[in-house]
Amino acid sequence: MKALVFDNELKIDNNYPKPSPKKGEALIKIKLAGLCNTDREITKGYMGFKGILGHEFVGIVEEINADDKSLLGKRVVGEINCGCGNCSYCFRNLQRHCPNRQTLGIFQKDGCFADYITLPLENIVEIPASVSDEVAVFAEPVAAALEILEQVHIKPAAKIAVLGDGKLGLLIAFVLSTTQADLTLVGKHENKLEIASKQGIKIELLENLEIKKDFDIVVDATGSVNGFETAVSLVKPRGILVLKSTVAADKPLNLAPIVIDEITVVGSRCGQFKPALRLLAKEKFDIDALVSGVYSFENALEAFEVNKQKDTLKVLLKF
Amino acid sequence: MKALVFDNELKIDNNYPKPSPKKGEALIKIKLAGLCNTDREITKGYMGFKGILGHEFVGIVEEINADDKSLLGKRVVGEINCGCGNCSYCFRNLQRHCPNRQTLGIFQKDGCFADYITLPLENIVEIPASVSDEVAVFAEPVAAALEILEQVHIKPAAKIAVLGDGKLGLLIAFVLSTTQADLTLVGKHENKLEIASKQGIKIELLENLEIKKDFDIVVDATGSVNGFETAVSLVKPRGILVLKSTVAADKPLNLAPIVIDEITVVGSRCGQFKPALRLLAKEKFDIDALVSGVYSFENALEAFEVNKQKDTLKVLLKF
Repeated sequence: MKALVFDNELKIDNNYPKPSPKKGEALIKIKLAGLCNTDREITKGYMGFKGILGHEFVGIVEEINADDKSLLGKRVVGEINCGCGNCSYCFRNLQRHCPNRQTLGIFQKDGCFADYITLPLENIVEIPASVSDEVAVFAEPVAAALEILEQVHIKPAAKIAVLGDGKLGLLIAFVLSTTQADLTLVGKHENKLEIASKQGIKIELLENLEIKKDFDIVVDATGSVNGFETAVSLVKPRGILVLKSTVAADKPLNLAPIVIDEITVVGSRCGQFKPALRLLAKEKFDIDALVSGVYSFENALEAFEVNKQKDTLKVLLKF
Repeated sequence: MKALVFDNELKIDNNYPKPSPKKGEALIKIKLAGLCNTDREITKGYMGFKGILGHEFVGIVEEINADDKSLLGKRVVGEINCGCGNCSYCFRNLQRHCPNRQTLGIFQKDGCFADYITLPLENIVEIPASVSDEVAVFAEPVAAALEILEQVHIKPAAKIAVLGDGKLGLLIAFVLSTTQADLTLVGKHENKLEIASKQGIKIELLENLEIKKDFDIVVDATGSVNGFETAVSLVKPRGILVLKSTVAADKPLNLAPIVIDEITVVGSRCGQFKPALRLLAKEKFDIDALVSGVYSFENALEAFEVNKQKDTLKVLLKF
């Protein structure tokens, strides 16, 4: 099969061995896949990953190695963390924290920039008919945005800032706009902020934002240390800072304000797909506005280059 | 009056003007005071404070500028943050987060290393007769330790590590040992750990501790960036890291593990004195074991030098 492989360098391999589903797994034919900043980080060495990249996809179940064949032929998305199935995390439906997990296209498991992947049946979720491929392919980042609502009690009277107008920041703003909280998306790019503004979300350019401790909750989706510091300077004493960026600090970081103002910092990563699909089926976000380009797989390397550019939002690969 | 003053350098002033209580305040004659690491940090520039140092004390109320004279002549301790009395924090009994607060011996208010201080009546708490001066003088750091129980739900089945065997770490271990959690105090100093061990607390030398993500809650009271990193490496995914150290990072800090493991970092600072005094009256901690020395005020500069030494725990000043 064809696959986009990273092994110190990124290349298309047209003769990569097709995977075969183990007991309890399904074989999925990929239709559409999305590029994520994590893919770019991996090509810089993140997680030390080698293999097929990619973890956002829509596909069709072609084969099932289990008695229950109910998903056969279905259009599906899939959760990217595969737990051991036998630890306290897996028993609590927290496979995404299983210490022995494999993660699609990120850690010890080939990803979805290929004709086929395999996934455990329990990871696979059927897409409602009303949700198009181009919308369903956002299930993974939407689930990551929804994870904030799993972790933090968002009260209707809360004042919230989301920092960062990249694709994750925009999706987080979309998701938080389903609550009644007083929400502002803060970013540096007028064109990106405009996407949120068109959907009724209050926006503010960072340079115009008054820096004062005024927000009950601040979500840092900037991917930068400066963003984290700005978030700290905006959150009220006893407030909550949700940290969505996995970028390592490139300079010393002063944590004293977190202690002095008794801020709670909530690290937040992957979420669950079922609520994400419920949300995508119900809410009429203009997800199309987040798509910067759709490339055929043959042009995957070009798509990767486009994904590096500052103005790019979501880049999709069509199989 | 006599006072220990910091104004770029530390010196004893025997002719410092005696303060006079404003409306709603009391004048307190200091009997005993405790040195804190914050005092040392201030002499290095922390908070840009100039004036009389000190915020841990036991005293006698000598004069009250208010109708209610019920505290006159009483032996008291006092909360160190003086709020404006007219903001959302003060209205919620969170004077310690009032944006316009003054803090005894730390910010814009002369401290207790002097014959007299003034404090608002609402800050003052009478000491139960059963609690000695030498125990009551720990009310402030015990309140800071108890603040953890205000902020975090400590479940009886929780596994907890306290990192740092300085005086704050030891007090936190004492306080957490009032719960039924499975508690371990981790430190570098056998002699300090021994104090906790003698009171039935499980101890471990850091060098003997197996570093794995095994604790539901880790309290960082090390005062160092390395300690914070160790804390991150010990807390379970989805666990809680309580940050008690206000030390600025002297090297870049990788926050990615907080996101990947969805750790909640809870900044924790000052607490309330009434529960601290209830605890000190009820629990029979061997607080004396924490006292490294008692100095008369005339030897305050020597006491400060002793407080800098690694093996020192609490140093007290007697008036």
